[in-house]
Amino acid sequence: MSAEQQQITQRKQDHIQAILEDPLIERRSDFEQIRLMHRALPELDFAKIDSRCEFLGQAIAFPFLISSMTGGAADNFATINRHLAEAAEACQVPMAVGSQRTMIHNPSAEASFRLRQYAPSVPLIANVGAVQLNYGFGYDEIQRAVDCLEADAIYLHLNPLQEIIQPEGDHNFARLADKIADLKNRLTVPIILKEVGAGLSPSDIQLGLDAGIEWFDLAGRGGTSWSRIEAHRSQNNLGLTLQDWGLSTTENLMLAHPFLPQAQFIASGGVRSGIDMAKAIILGAKMVGAAAPLLPPAMHSTAQTIAKIEQFKQELQAVQFLLAIEKLDDLHCNSDLILQSPWHSMLRQRG
Amino acid sequence: MSAEQQQITQRKQDHIQAILEDPLIERRSDFEQIRLMHRALPELDFAKIDSRCEFLGQAIAFPFLISSMTGGAADNFATINRHLAEAAEACQVPMAVGSQRTMIHNPSAEASFRLRQYAPSVPLIANVGAVQLNYGFGYDEIQRAVDCLEADAIYLHLNPLQEIIQPEGDHNFARLADKIADLKNRLTVPIILKEVGAGLSPSDIQLGLDAGIEWFDLAGRGGTSWSRIEAHRSQNNLGLTLQDWGLSTTENLMLAHPFLPQAQFIASGGVRSGIDMAKAIILGAKMVGAAAPLLPPAMHSTAQTIAKIEQFKQELQAVQFLLAIEKLDDLHCNSDLILQSPWHSMLRQRG
Amino acid sequence: MSAEQQQITQRKQDHIQAILEDPLIERRSDFEQIRLMHRALPELDFAKIDSRCEFLGQAIAFPFLISSMTGGAADNFATINRHLAEAAEACQVPMAVGSQRTMIHNPSAEASFRLRQYAPSVPLIANVGAVQLNYGFGYDEIQRAVDCLEADAIYLHLNPLQEIIQPEGDHNFARLADKIADLKNRLTVPIILKEVGAGLSPSDIQLGLDAGIEWFDLAGRGGTSWSRIEAHRSQNNLGLTLQDWGLSTTENLMLAHPFLPQAQFIASGGVRSGIDMAKAIILGAKMVGAAAPLLPPAMHSTAQTIAKIEQFKQELQAVQFLLAIEKLDDLHCNSDLILQSPWHSMLRQRG
Amino acid sequence: MSAEQQQITQRKQDHIQAILEDPLIERRSDFEQIRLMHRALPELDFAKIDSRCEFLGQAIAFPFLISSMTGGAADNFATINRHLAEAAEACQVPMAVGSQRTMIHNPSAEASFRLRQYAPSVPLIANVGAVQLNYGFGYDEIQRAVDCLEADAIYLHLNPLQEIIQPEGDHNFARLADKIADLKNRLTVPIILKEVGAGLSPSDIQLGLDAGIEWFDLAGRGGTSWSRIEAHRSQNNLGLTLQDWGLSTTENLMLAHPFLPQAQFIASGGVRSGIDMAKAIILGAKMVGAAAPLLPPAMHSTAQTIAKIEQFKQELQAVQFLLAIEKLDDLHCNSDLILQSPWHSMLRQRG
Ligand SMILES: Cc1cc2nc3c(=O)[nH]c(=O)nc-3n(C[C@H](O)[C@H](O)[C@@H](O)COP(=O)(O)O)c2cc1C
Ligand SMILES: Cc1cc2nc3c(=O)[nH]c(=O)nc-3n(C[C@H](O)[C@H](O)[C@@H](O)COP(=O)(O)O)c2cc1C
Ligand SMILES: Cc1cc2nc3c(=O)[nH]c(=O)nc-3n(C[C@H](O)[C@H](O)[C@@H](O)COP(=O)(O)O)c2cc1C
Ligand SMILES: Cc1cc2nc3c(=O)[nH]c(=O)nc-3n(C[C@H](O)[C@H](O)[C@@H](O)COP(=O)(O)O)c2cc1C
Repeated sequence: MSAEQQQITQRKQDHIQAILEDPLIERRSDFEQIRLMHRALPELDFAKIDSRCEFLGQAIAFPFLISSMTGGAADNFATINRHLAEAAEACQVPMAVGSQRTMIHNPSAEASFRLRQYAPSVPLIANVGAVQLNYGFGYDEIQRAVDCLEADAIYLHLNPLQEIIQPEGDHNFARLADKIADLKNRLTVPIILKEVGAGLSPSDIQLGLDAGIEWFDLAGRGGTSWSRIEAHRSQNNLGLTLQDWGLSTTENLMLAHPFLPQAQFIASGGVRSGIDMAKAIILGAKMVGAAAPLLPPAMHSTAQTIAKIEQFKQELQAVQFLLAIEKLDDLHCNSDLILQSPWHSMLRQRG
Repeated sequence: MSAEQQQITQRKQDHIQAILEDPLIERRSDFEQIRLMHRALPELDFAKIDSRCEFLGQAIAFPFLISSMTGGAADNFATINRHLAEAAEACQVPMAVGSQRTMIHNPSAEASFRLRQYAPSVPLIANVGAVQLNYGFGYDEIQRAVDCLEADAIYLHLNPLQEIIQPEGDHNFARLADKIADLKNRLTVPIILKEVGAGLSPSDIQLGLDAGIEWFDLAGRGGTSWSRIEAHRSQNNLGLTLQDWGLSTTENLMLAHPFLPQAQFIASGGVRSGIDMAKAIILGAKMVGAAAPLLPPAMHSTAQTIAKIEQFKQELQAVQFLLAIEKLDDLHCNSDLILQSPWHSMLRQRG
Repeated sequence: MSAEQQQITQRKQDHIQAILEDPLIERRSDFEQIRLMHRALPELDFAKIDSRCEFLGQAIAFPFLISSMTGGAADNFATINRHLAEAAEACQVPMAVGSQRTMIHNPSAEASFRLRQYAPSVPLIANVGAVQLNYGFGYDEIQRAVDCLEADAIYLHLNPLQEIIQPEGDHNFARLADKIADLKNRLTVPIILKEVGAGLSPSDIQLGLDAGIEWFDLAGRGGTSWSRIEAHRSQNNLGLTLQDWGLSTTENLMLAHPFLPQAQFIASGGVRSGIDMAKAIILGAKMVGAAAPLLPPAMHSTAQTIAKIEQFKQELQAVQFLLAIEKLDDLHCNSDLILQSPWHSMLRQRG
Repeated sequence: MSAEQQQITQRKQDHIQAILEDPLIERRSDFEQIRLMHRALPELDFAKIDSRCEFLGQAIAFPFLISSMTGGAADNFATINRHLAEAAEACQVPMAVGSQRTMIHNPSAEASFRLRQYAPSVPLIANVGAVQLNYGFGYDEIQRAVDCLEADAIYLHLNPLQEIIQPEGDHNFARLADKIADLKNRLTVPIILKEVGAGLSPSDIQLGLDAGIEWFDLAGRGGTSWSRIEAHRSQNNLGLTLQDWGLSTTENLMLAHPFLPQAQFIASGGVRSGIDMAKAIILGAKMVGAAAPLLPPAMHSTAQTIAKIEQFKQELQAVQFLLAIEKLDDLHCNSDLILQSPWHSMLRQRG
């Protein structure tokens, strides 16, 4: 392994360590600001609650996605990825991998991304940083990333904040939209544009739509903060100063609403329960992703990872039941389920 | 006693223990967000303040109801219920019992519900979970519950959240509205629909009205949280995740307002003083109930229970006096008594 | 002294003790929610700032009033009152005494109210509870209270909350408005209606105006809470439950605004600085009173009391200077001095 | 040195000590209430981000100004000023000095202000309190202050709050506007009107414009509080009571907005990062100043001072990048960059 490759591997280890240790990493998102309308008489049998849906043309168990985390030339990366992939298969949910840039330069990292063997029947999503299109990556490299996973789609992640916090970061984000459009025309699998914790603004979504992209993972503020994590690693002040930069996941869903149904949204960033999932779907998300909550179980075993994913599912189904929503479809964009504060109208009415 | 019956009895003991020990059980409701208009010159004699009213056609001392708590095949359940019933009689207020499902299967539990001997002259309310109509209960079982108490009405409680938190819970809430309507047509005493801590949404109230129900106990969020209590018992994550689910009692009253006067409301859940009672009545409640505040005195003695109920009455009468409301009737739905923040109008006026 | 008189004296001692010891007695009012518009170029000489005004036809140094506190048959009451009266004279501000009911029944209490000798040239205000008009007091008793002080006006305080908290309280507040009107027609000095910490509602002010009263001391919530103090003395739950009952002084000023200029307002309750004074005057008060802040210095010496009063004056003058208001008159009802949050308009404008 | 001069020197030492020690000195401004719109696809190369601009006709590196701090007849004042001046030169940003009143009376203080030698190519700003125009200062004294620095402009600071807190303060702020207008007509360098921590109200700005002034340093509330600092020195209650008086820097920018472009604004007071800088510029500031954050490094060395200034620049450039703003000019008054809370519109839309 080259010195540069060793450095990248070390960086990834540091990230995982920082996320596990940072007591603030489970920071409060603003999902709890949205409240839902309880039904005491749901007129439903809980056993009939159905959370199944489709993603990328395949049937899945519920609209949950294992967000991009890791992969690379170290044993624990491969182990984490295997546990995640086996759990994805067992739970019948899609899984995305961490950035595959490393494996393009370092073939020994490839093994950690060969996950189709563990997850033969669920959607897998490859992952490369979009900025790499300005640093030597083109169709060939991207296709290799997809092929290694036998992926059903590829995440191009957009992480300008993370890159400028890193001393060794790639800083040239110029003219990426055109390159993404070109790539889109050549790749056979769909591209999903994705932030990594600061959200996608309406202008970003518009650029994506213009480039022919249909899927967007908002990956908003409220969960893992890369700015904060990079600061841990480098004692870098800039990272701490900017740790709360960006659009929260709920804000982002509301800002993205006008782009429906032309654009399809995955919500991630700070999703910590099936209640959060239900709220994201009500606000317009088709799929909901989580990363940090799965890291501790995935470091341990497939069984623990499955248990965590099943907990999200149990919670989502409980909420569907309490909202009297038998079929998942009836949750999507159903703003009648949002409890509007009667305090406002009481105060208004008397003026 | 069968093993199943022993398990149910143990569960009820655990609930009581959890409610007594949980430091969070006296959580803040949002009653304090409503403020009332003080009168310095009430032009009243405090001695003439009158809080008497009618409930179920009977005269009672003030609009307070001992909410459903317990009953079953254990000595302390019978003792608590006797203390409550004696205090109800002494204070001339109505009393409801906890779920009587247990006594249908286990005759030894019946004694704890035979309270007419202790409370000959006040309304008593029987109690069965509505979901039992999907699990073998019909007119006969319900009538037995009523008869045992010589009850003046029966609560059918709706507790979908509590049931799905319980591993052994009854999960089929389908087609209950029709069965409630049938029951209504056969029973001689009125049915009161009641939640147990998450509130009744407008859709629920509408279903109830369509089934011919006139009385509703909102039993909202803000006091005892069954989701939280079940979590105590079972280390169940789902219960903690959902512990704050539902409509608060004050919100619920505001949402229910449009159904007046066709529907009549009992407000419970987080009522902790006569001030809260006055606010609930101003917001539209005809009766106000409390459970958890009465548990400690009822475990101790009839005298302590009476003292607690008299404290609610003293506080309600103090508030009536300070609002210059001699007769209770003038409190009901009297929104002129609500203090609208002059801050808003000051800020608005200057734009 | 009769047993009853001794009890009253002891009660007053207990009150003073409670106010001195209660760490919560300096509770936050909401004066700080009002913000004023700073002037960097006031175009004034601070030495020329003029806070003088008139009260009850007499010139005073600034619109500050020593609110009613004490008096009675004990040495320390007389001492406190002498210190207050000497400081009033030295600072040229008016002073009110505590309730004089005690001296009507107990001549030995009179001496503590004979304050004209210490304060020959400032307005003095007598004080009796209006409710006493239902308990044997009439023109004669009230006139005796006025005469003892050689008072320029008399406070009739309205304290329904305080009376019902006291076990020995006087509870009949019926038909007081008519009796106040009668009294008004016979007395030669003006009557000022006053609460004692819960504020006067618009209905109360209207009743007062109808009875021919022109002056009102709002005495709102935010400072001394009699409900809380009585609770201290009696371990009475009702007092604690109601300790935050009432209209805050600032709210009360805004609610009272429509009655200007027919009614004239004294603001008291939680006034703790000359900044609070300025805000009260801007919101419509003609005079501003404080009690609790003067108790510790008045227990010590005239000099300390003077220092405290001069601090209020220095602060008021600083604020006048920073608002570019040379003459006090230009402060009164000058709502242009209130800083309207530009945050609101910024957010509104972009909607 | 005269006794009076020694006293002034001691006062300045005390100020510096108080600012260094006061744990509250880094109090929260309200910059964080403004949120900006993140761009995930900025379509820019971070290396091309350009923060250069002009100030007083000269090119500077970025819109940062070292705010007025010190100078006087003591070695450490001269050292601090030399470090600041050398850093200003190295970073190519303008610098202002503290009040030069002392050097008019005390020639030995002059050396600390002779900074042109250390900062030959950046704008330097002289500084005198405007109130001195009422205490013997005229054209000659002001010109001497300018000449000593070879300044490009002069701050006339307006500090009515600070002066009245100081026992020895100058209290006559009458008719200053006319004297400022006269001075303006005679001086060859521009006058900048500046508060010292309480902001400039619209009326103040209007008076300044009428006097022919174009530049205003708002110096608002949220950072260094002179009222608080003087209180430290003198145990003066007035200072603590008024420590939060004034307009916050962000509020002040919004209130000043209608005066653009006739007036030009420098924002200072509580600016603690390049994020704050960007927000101030978006709200209408042309330049942004900071004082307290530079005091500790300036007491130590030129190198540490440079590092601190470069940190502000790095942060401002990061924010420009994340907002997709290549050139600084596109930041100024660009309210499209402000994130309007989508919460409001969601709640509104459903009413
Ligand atoms: C340990 C860890 C590693 C991650 N690595 C990547 C990555 O390599 N590429 C990427 O696009 N996102 C990465 N993410 C970000 C998540 O995929 C996702 O964007 C984020 O919204 C998930 O938020 P959450 O951690 O709050 O659930 C990582 C997150 C974590 C916790
Ligand atoms: C110890 C305890 C047992 C309860 N048991 C029942 C029950 O068996 N059936 C029922 O309908 N509600 C039951 N409740 C709920 C109350 O009757 C009521 O719904 C609730 O709103 C009272 O709220 P509070 O405890 O905050 O006053 C119970 C409450 C407590 C505290
Ligand atoms: C020690 C003390 C005794 C008081 N006694 C009386 C009283 O006898 N009669 C009365 O009208 N108000 C009395 N008050 C209330 C004040 O006069 C006044 O109504 C109140 O608003 C002053 O508020 P503050 O203490 O927050 O400044 C008393 C207040 C205090 C602190
Ligand atoms: C140590 C110190 C000394 C200061 N001395 C002066 C001064 O002599 N003249 C002046 O106009 N402002 C003076 N200021 C105020 C600042 O120049 C400026 O007005 C203020 O807004 C900077 O705010 P900040 O300290 O929060 O960054 C001083 C500030 C500090 C921290």
